[in-house]
Amino acid sequence: MPKPNTLCIGLAGLGTVGGGLIRLLSANADIIERRTGRKITVKRVLVHNLAKKRDCPASLELTDDYTKLTDDPDIDALVEVIGGKDTAKKLIERGLDHGKHIVTANKALLAEEGLPLFQKAKEQDRILRYEASVAGAIPIVQALKESLAANHITSLVGILNGTSNYILSQMTANNLDFATALTDATKMGYAEADPSLDIDGFDCAHKLILLLRLSFGLHYDYQKLPIQGIRNIAALDIALANQLGYHIKLLGQARNTMEVDANGNPLVEAGVFPALVPHSFLLARVDGSFNAIHIKADAAGSLFFHGRGAGDLPTASAVLADLLAVARCEYPNNTGFAQDLPKASLVSADQWKARYYVRVMVADAPGVLRDIAGAMAEQGISMSQVVQHEAQKNGEVPLVLMTHATSQLAMDQAIATIKTSIHPSEIVHFKVLE
Amino acid sequence: MPKPNTLCIGLAGLGTVGGGLIRLLSANADIIERRTGRKITVKRVLVHNLAKKRDCPASLELTDDYTKLTDDPDIDALVEVIGGKDTAKKLIERGLDHGKHIVTANKALLAEEGLPLFQKAKEQDRILRYEASVAGAIPIVQALKESLAANHITSLVGILNGTSNYILSQMTANNLDFATALTDATKMGYAEADPSLDIDGFDCAHKLILLLRLSFGLHYDYQKLPIQGIRNIAALDIALANQLGYHIKLLGQARNTMEVDANGNPLVEAGVFPALVPHSFLLARVDGSFNAIHIKADAAGSLFFHGRGAGDLPTASAVLADLLAVARCEYPNNTGFAQDLPKASLVSADQWKARYYVRVMVADAPGVLRDIAGAMAEQGISMSQVVQHEAQKNGEVPLVLMTHATSQLAMDQAIATIKTSIHPSEIVHFKVLE
Repeated sequence: MPKPNTLCIGLAGLGTVGGGLIRLLSANADIIERRTGRKITVKRVLVHNLAKKRDCPASLELTDDYTKLTDDPDIDALVEVIGGKDTAKKLIERGLDHGKHIVTANKALLAEEGLPLFQKAKEQDRILRYEASVAGAIPIVQALKESLAANHITSLVGILNGTSNYILSQMTANNLDFATALTDATKMGYAEADPSLDIDGFDCAHKLILLLRLSFGLHYDYQKLPIQGIRNIAALDIALANQLGYHIKLLGQARNTMEVDANGNPLVEAGVFPALVPHSFLLARVDGSFNAIHIKADAAGSLFFHGRGAGDLPTASAVLADLLAVARCEYPNNTGFAQDLPKASLVSADQWKARYYVRVMVADAPGVLRDIAGAMAEQGISMSQVVQHEAQKNGEVPLVLMTHATSQLAMDQAIATIKTSIHPSEIVHFKVLE
Repeated sequence: MPKPNTLCIGLAGLGTVGGGLIRLLSANADIIERRTGRKITVKRVLVHNLAKKRDCPASLELTDDYTKLTDDPDIDALVEVIGGKDTAKKLIERGLDHGKHIVTANKALLAEEGLPLFQKAKEQDRILRYEASVAGAIPIVQALKESLAANHITSLVGILNGTSNYILSQMTANNLDFATALTDATKMGYAEADPSLDIDGFDCAHKLILLLRLSFGLHYDYQKLPIQGIRNIAALDIALANQLGYHIKLLGQARNTMEVDANGNPLVEAGVFPALVPHSFLLARVDGSFNAIHIKADAAGSLFFHGRGAGDLPTASAVLADLLAVARCEYPNNTGFAQDLPKASLVSADQWKARYYVRVMVADAPGVLRDIAGAMAEQGISMSQVVQHEAQKNGEVPLVLMTHATSQLAMDQAIATIKTSIHPSEIVHFKVLE
């Protein structure tokens, strides 16, 4: 029987984060008790494969039946760090039905199927916390739900995927191409065997959906979010951008237009994409596997957070922050809003305005620059900088244009015109963060 | 009579922060209600001078009697932003006695006389929150109390005074001397008529005492803290440091040694001083009146926060974060620790180890470098870099030494030897942040 001064938990998942949590609960038991006046004990751990050899205390009781966690009356709270959506969802739903508080790191589940879970937690008056689901040890969930709660959040932009940022940092520092940097990241343990979730922007997109909800109190369908990853970024563009004073970063960005669409739904601008970030921005200086988030709020002004976005102990630190809130018996403040969340509409990506970096590989022949400049002018796009470099491959020249702000639609049309008129062997473009 | 869905407050102080709070409560009433399900209304405002003309809503009821706030049964919570220690302390004590929750921005009061106030809040089971007292809109109090609660904080270092940072940034960017930059800051409204609290490090020291308490759960006497300000920083040192790859910043630093002194008191290293910060550190890139804090924690790793440390709305944002927590009926978690705070001992400043920047103004004569190097060697101090510059004034040469880590005691003794042996016209030294 747990003592009354003990919070008894059921832990689902004994991988990187679950293992880190077990170690941290033991190593930092002193500070946890000083902070809360309570102990936290793990009664039982859900694992997928009971037969697997594990480096964990022999006293730990393992089970492969999730109802042994959800239905145990001794257990006060469940920690879900198994990932995936099926068992995790069943565990959380049944746990809430049995009156358990929930702490989860599952960004995919909360982004794609979060609303009914928040609804159930509300009905059951239970805590459902998820600090570890976005940006690891950075307390961004808490900051948005509580510290900035009296602000209208105007915009946020974040480096939310450590794997992608590690790859881009390596490409930048060592002039590597994408494939080499990815192999490197896999060897270092920063990238999974199947890296798609990270490098194609899906992980970042899951986190962005959560941030959008926490910042604006709006729900948006994950499936409709524009998502672009880093697979097609060339070493050449990283080098050319660097010369111009920018680093290329994979960003999740959201902006509350404070307007509504024709149906009265609040309009937000949101997406995941690689972009040029000026060296003078703190975001440009986020290296390796670190995460960072820059927020603009109407009262607080500009805020920047930087820290470890992944890893066993940083993630376990965030999970434990939530558990300590449960131990302190805080009231549920799950979504950060007292009322249900209205649905948001997304500004059509076509209509987003941004400055652009455009690189065109062209033959070093007369008239080419005139045709390109003509195609831009036709769409009302004005240029802030044009750099023609020395011939690089097959006698072709990388011509780089930096534009003033224009819509994505105008940019796409200018590019289509350039493709038809001068047939460049390659043309790429990226947004520039402002 | 306030409605049951309304949190009714008494506001003490209608200066920059109090005025900002009134404006923000009105401008952001919508988001406050969405976040908490409650309204916040100001029933009465304490001011020093009732006759003074003010730019505030005519409906606001003013009083110069603080008991009209503390003793009013309609009022749920008091916001104290009058500053100073006398009336503020009486207001908070009497407010707690009458069962009011307290939100304050008063770093001086909490640093110098905080413990009995926390004690009284605990006895009365009331919330005493103070997010606005350190680093303005940066949610550092919340982060340390809750988000990092399961960590042992190893160290923290912060730029905690916007006025000093503005002055140093101006000196760096425009090659100004201190007096000119201070005049400039006063004109811009960044410095008070009496700037001593800011530029001599006292404001930073107040905040450091609060951070030390929040991070380590230890109390330390403000009066014993080593404090050094920025009055004596020369434009020459800023320029020379910059050439070597450093910015000079006023820092508050604290490190938990995790050791105890002879009496069993936990030993911490803490102080306020200007230091050289490598350009590669995010802290070096904190410009103008911004604040920033870098934390190292055993599980979360490295965390960096950057934002507005002062100003009407950024500070009001932090005050409101606390008020919204009161509105959500959170349990008191005032110090961030369940138990009383033990007293800390400070590592003697003599024993601190650091790298040093030393500038000696010397005659350009043979043997001078030998004597200086000899004095350093005698104290076991080894050099990482020596730069002798061109002659600058009166035929004297600034000789700059960068040392490896050494104790302050050894450094002081080496400097005393140099003074006696070669009689330099000037010798200055600063710690280097690592």
